[in-house]
Amino acid sequence: MEQLLRVQNFNVSSDGYGAGEGQSLEHPFGHADPGTMFSWAGATASWPSRTDPGGSRGLDDYFTRDFANNIGAEIMGRGKFGPQHGPWGNEDWRGWWGDEPPFHMPVFVMTHHPRPAFTLSDTTFHFVEGDPAAVLAKAKEAAQGKDVRLGGGASTIRRFLDADLVDALHVAVAPTKLGAGSRLWESPDELRDRFHLDIVPSPSGGVTHHVFWRK
Amino acid sequence: MEQLLRVQNFNVSSDGYGAGEGQSLEHPFGHADPGTMFSWAGATASWPSRTDPGGSRGLDDYFTRDFANNIGAEIMGRGKFGPQHGPWGNEDWRGWWGDEPPFHMPVFVMTHHPRPAFTLSDTTFHFVEGDPAAVLAKAKEAAQGKDVRLGGGASTIRRFLDADLVDALHVAVAPTKLGAGSRLWESPDELRDRFHLDIVPSPSGGVTHHVFWRK
Repeated sequence: MEQLLRVQNFNVSSDGYGAGEGQSLEHPFGHADPGTMFSWAGATASWPSRTDPGGSRGLDDYFTRDFANNIGAEIMGRGKFGPQHGPWGNEDWRGWWGDEPPFHMPVFVMTHHPRPAFTLSDTTFHFVEGDPAAVLAKAKEAAQGKDVRLGGGASTIRRFLDADLVDALHVAVAPTKLGAGSRLWESPDELRDRFHLDIVPSPSGGVTHHVFWRK
Repeated sequence: MEQLLRVQNFNVSSDGYGAGEGQSLEHPFGHADPGTMFSWAGATASWPSRTDPGGSRGLDDYFTRDFANNIGAEIMGRGKFGPQHGPWGNEDWRGWWGDEPPFHMPVFVMTHHPRPAFTLSDTTFHFVEGDPAAVLAKAKEAAQGKDVRLGGGASTIRRFLDADLVDALHVAVAPTKLGAGSRLWESPDELRDRFHLDIVPSPSGGVTHHVFWRK
């Protein structure tokens, strides 16, 4: 069975930014408004961070409940793991997600600054350097035959797209402009030479789902 | 975790029939044209009966790859299992699907005619009678905490809808009229009093996806 590299539930503004400027502990997505960007996902029953019962089970829920479907490992950029830059001052920071991260699988954080792996609940964070192909090889081995999710942010996804390693992408485009930040694309049309594209408006979430798969 | 009863990838004509008249060994769906009704699903990478590589990974694939996602058992009517009526003449018939049925879980076939359970590969077929609530209780126990899929046909789904036991339905409506056969509804609007409804045209499959979830 072929192991795919999949981007799932990645969110960008209408001008293609995955996060705004000024990422910090208080503002993981910089000046981007999480409500506008992500509320479509938070409204669904299968949102991975949902703690209360309820939520919708319409079209948007198909996207959130596919988040972990046949996924065995995640790759993320350092900016998704935390707001720090440069060498780790200490190793107190263990991600944004508290003691129960919503991954439940090995996670590979790409960084030039080494740090020992650690485990929180059923998620183990590994800190790896190397080019995208080398990191993907490690993640595929850890995924034990399942697919690998590429978790973002935008610059990390760009690196894997530029290396032509991405097999499928789901990107939800929000009706808001950010003007600056970490950019995935100027237009989704940039990927049409290599990918098929289905464009599907969310019936109630305000975003437009873009589903790409390799030609 | 609540166990849901879900209808997944059920197909009907624009006038609401899940199968035409004259079901037989050669024509499992009677006079309905399988090409028009089901080709959207067969074109996807995750179609459960796919044997060759390839297939699309766009919107339609989200529906087919959700087929078994968190499903632990299936309930089906006898007409989905085979074309016979009345007492089993013999027990040679073991379903339409050959030695590797696409279920990979316990399947409960509703019939008034008893027959011993049997296993093909990793699918075990149980033959059960009783009202929908009693059959659902058996299937939930077999599903071991996962959801139960209600596999059809239309008259079986109707029975569970009439007993208000269905939590979520995905029905793909094909642009063809059958005029007669086994009917799910006259119009999807019949379910709006009890269900939310997202209506989503397939970008390339010709059908219109109807996604219902309980209010």
